[in-house]
Amino acid sequence: MPRIQIINTGTELMLGRVLNTHQQWLCRQLADHGYLVQRQIAVADTGEAIVNAVRDSLAQAEVVITTGGLGPTSDDLTRDLVAQLLGRQLTTDERVLRHIEQYFLSRRRPQPESTKVQALVPEGATVLMNAFGTAPGLILEIPPHQFNPTDRTAWLIMLPGPPRELRPMFSDQVLPQVTRRFPLPSTYVCRTLRTTGMGESKLEEAIAQPLKALTDAGLELGYCARMGEVDVRVSACGPHASTLVASAEKMIRALLAQYIYTAEEESLEQVVVRLLTKRQQTLAVAESCTGGCLAHRLTNVPGASAVFWGGWITYANTAKLQELGVSAATLETLGAVSEPTAQTMAEGARAGADADYALAITGIAGPAGGSPEKPVGTVFIGLATRTKTVVVQQLNQMDRETFKYVTTQQALELLRRELLAEQVTPA
Amino acid sequence: MPRIQIINTGTELMLGRVLNTHQQWLCRQLADHGYLVQRQIAVADTGEAIVNAVRDSLAQAEVVITTGGLGPTSDDLTRDLVAQLLGRQLTTDERVLRHIEQYFLSRRRPQPESTKVQALVPEGATVLMNAFGTAPGLILEIPPHQFNPTDRTAWLIMLPGPPRELRPMFSDQVLPQVTRRFPLPSTYVCRTLRTTGMGESKLEEAIAQPLKALTDAGLELGYCARMGEVDVRVSACGPHASTLVASAEKMIRALLAQYIYTAEEESLEQVVVRLLTKRQQTLAVAESCTGGCLAHRLTNVPGASAVFWGGWITYANTAKLQELGVSAATLETLGAVSEPTAQTMAEGARAGADADYALAITGIAGPAGGSPEKPVGTVFIGLATRTKTVVVQQLNQMDRETFKYVTTQQALELLRRELLAEQVTPA
Repeated sequence: MPRIQIINTGTELMLGRVLNTHQQWLCRQLADHGYLVQRQIAVADTGEAIVNAVRDSLAQAEVVITTGGLGPTSDDLTRDLVAQLLGRQLTTDERVLRHIEQYFLSRRRPQPESTKVQALVPEGATVLMNAFGTAPGLILEIPPHQFNPTDRTAWLIMLPGPPRELRPMFSDQVLPQVTRRFPLPSTYVCRTLRTTGMGESKLEEAIAQPLKALTDAGLELGYCARMGEVDVRVSACGPHASTLVASAEKMIRALLAQYIYTAEEESLEQVVVRLLTKRQQTLAVAESCTGGCLAHRLTNVPGASAVFWGGWITYANTAKLQELGVSAATLETLGAVSEPTAQTMAEGARAGADADYALAITGIAGPAGGSPEKPVGTVFIGLATRTKTVVVQQLNQMDRETFKYVTTQQALELLRRELLAEQVTPA
Repeated sequence: MPRIQIINTGTELMLGRVLNTHQQWLCRQLADHGYLVQRQIAVADTGEAIVNAVRDSLAQAEVVITTGGLGPTSDDLTRDLVAQLLGRQLTTDERVLRHIEQYFLSRRRPQPESTKVQALVPEGATVLMNAFGTAPGLILEIPPHQFNPTDRTAWLIMLPGPPRELRPMFSDQVLPQVTRRFPLPSTYVCRTLRTTGMGESKLEEAIAQPLKALTDAGLELGYCARMGEVDVRVSACGPHASTLVASAEKMIRALLAQYIYTAEEESLEQVVVRLLTKRQQTLAVAESCTGGCLAHRLTNVPGASAVFWGGWITYANTAKLQELGVSAATLETLGAVSEPTAQTMAEGARAGADADYALAITGIAGPAGGSPEKPVGTVFIGLATRTKTVVVQQLNQMDRETFKYVTTQQALELLRRELLAEQVTPA
């Protein structure tokens, strides 16, 4: 297995002005093909920092990928620095030069003189043409012993910084060459099961022991906790990889059952929109404490308009009363955060929208507004269908934004389970 | 100036399953206080990778910050590995143990046995209590020559992985201790002006030249473009730092005027809620294509309930018709994405809520739904007050989620400018 390292260069990264999306994207692409990145480093655009990072990584790894620093401006130093470090001449690549000229011509923009520097290529480099920009990517073969104490040849792969240039270049040109030149020693299989409704510790308690025979046999078992959900990742290498992972998945599915909401690359809201679309059913929402977060998540899914009618943000009590038919008596005696309020909100929303389902949420997001009987984090989630209404109570004691996200996750999950239950119940 | 390095641990990072937001956040916090991060490293949760990274960084830097690996599960290795590397015993900290017990008690959840491991603390460590979770942070003082060839003492600062735990711990406990223990060599002053409505290049054109005398005198001028906004950051070091930064701020305020929405650590929605609260006025919303994003942002602000009535998510056309009084004729002849629809939505929402203001949004988020006359990205934003309604048209050609955010930013800004204009107009 080749050791792979990524070096992200950019002073704006070290000042915290931009988020390093390259790291995640590159790691993900490689992981999906069975390659694990050993280390990722970010450094500022200074000569010393870049040279040290490249030298360091070439001493440790067979594949070193750099991002950024190939453009035409004064802080684009990587190409020059690497040529110096490797002791290679830079010469103009005519094909790249014509590509850059063509790039500006076709856009009817004048070509700044400075852009020509991007056609300079270290001797011996494989040039990766940039289909969406001007700076080419470069692959440099580093002979054994130049930096690495072992007798393995290394590849230094230099990619341009803009994501829309880097991503297609990596997928279309780099990945095929890397998999050919550095084939995996054995079959690699990986599977991720996404769960919601069970904490990370409880989940590990539920599956780690039963899977022990498999992990002893080489199965890798990992957890990744995010807001309102935990991914369970099983992977294995070698001739028995498929069998190991398939057995693990089967056992985990039996143990966690409906806590698993997908094994695909999709969010809970995508699953809900997908299920509703398949059934040609519609959904409305009524949100108090989550204040639009549920609708926002649903409408992040392209195509949501086929199933999502819309809804009400009934933040003020008058809104609950006027729009959804919650009675003044209920609000006064039982309060806005109560089971009857959630029930009426759900039923009012479903009827108002004439939708197949409505989700309603009322609770106390905090930081203020709690009481001994109803502490901050108390929330009632209602689900109305055409035949019944259920209300569940939760206690989500967390900061305001996490509260909103986790609560909407619980609401989506309530609907998902209803959709699954209906599916298996004979009509 | 202390050399600072960050080590982010987590196999999920190296598999590209999560985005490394810690790097940006920590670098930003440090940069705002005059500290530049020299290098950031991410490695998987394996013993060798973590130990190598910590040893490497301690050999190069005076402040090494690790994130992650302090939780209760089997892949939380950092605490144990660091104790071994430093040759320190782990002992149970009774205060932390009680805190963990209390955490589960107050949430009425059973405490998994595994969570107790989080109370183990290496000898000599300063414990940072975790106000929003169970795993404490740790500061370890590393004597000269243990790893670093120089005779400078280093700090190894270990932070828990979840952002909602890490961030307050860093801001409230770590940053004050770091600035005290590793003071900057000279006065450092930094000020950030947050703007919206003007692109980064145009903004630079507007201020870079006028500020040249100040930048020549040592002022640092930086831009940070984010979705729907650009921060302008001015900073300086040395005895004249305050004067330089104050002069720069005065000039930038004169040049950019109302494009600056705050100089504080607050979002545009916080500014809008603050202004409305001060005036004791109320707001309702009617959202189509942004699908709850505007309401969600407003209700992320603690105390929003004092001014935010709620609103309507009129995603389907029937919702616009039924809830806000948009006529079938308008929808048919002019379409849901039109100025009259936005106007009626805003007026319908304001009247329905009896609010002082209503914001309405209707447009085409994409990726589907565009036409030659109304391409994807077309959006109409309406603002109704008690005396008038204005509608502005925008073209936000970007991916779906960015479209939603940028559009709600424009809506919030429309209201903010209205509130400011009313303020200066005599009654």
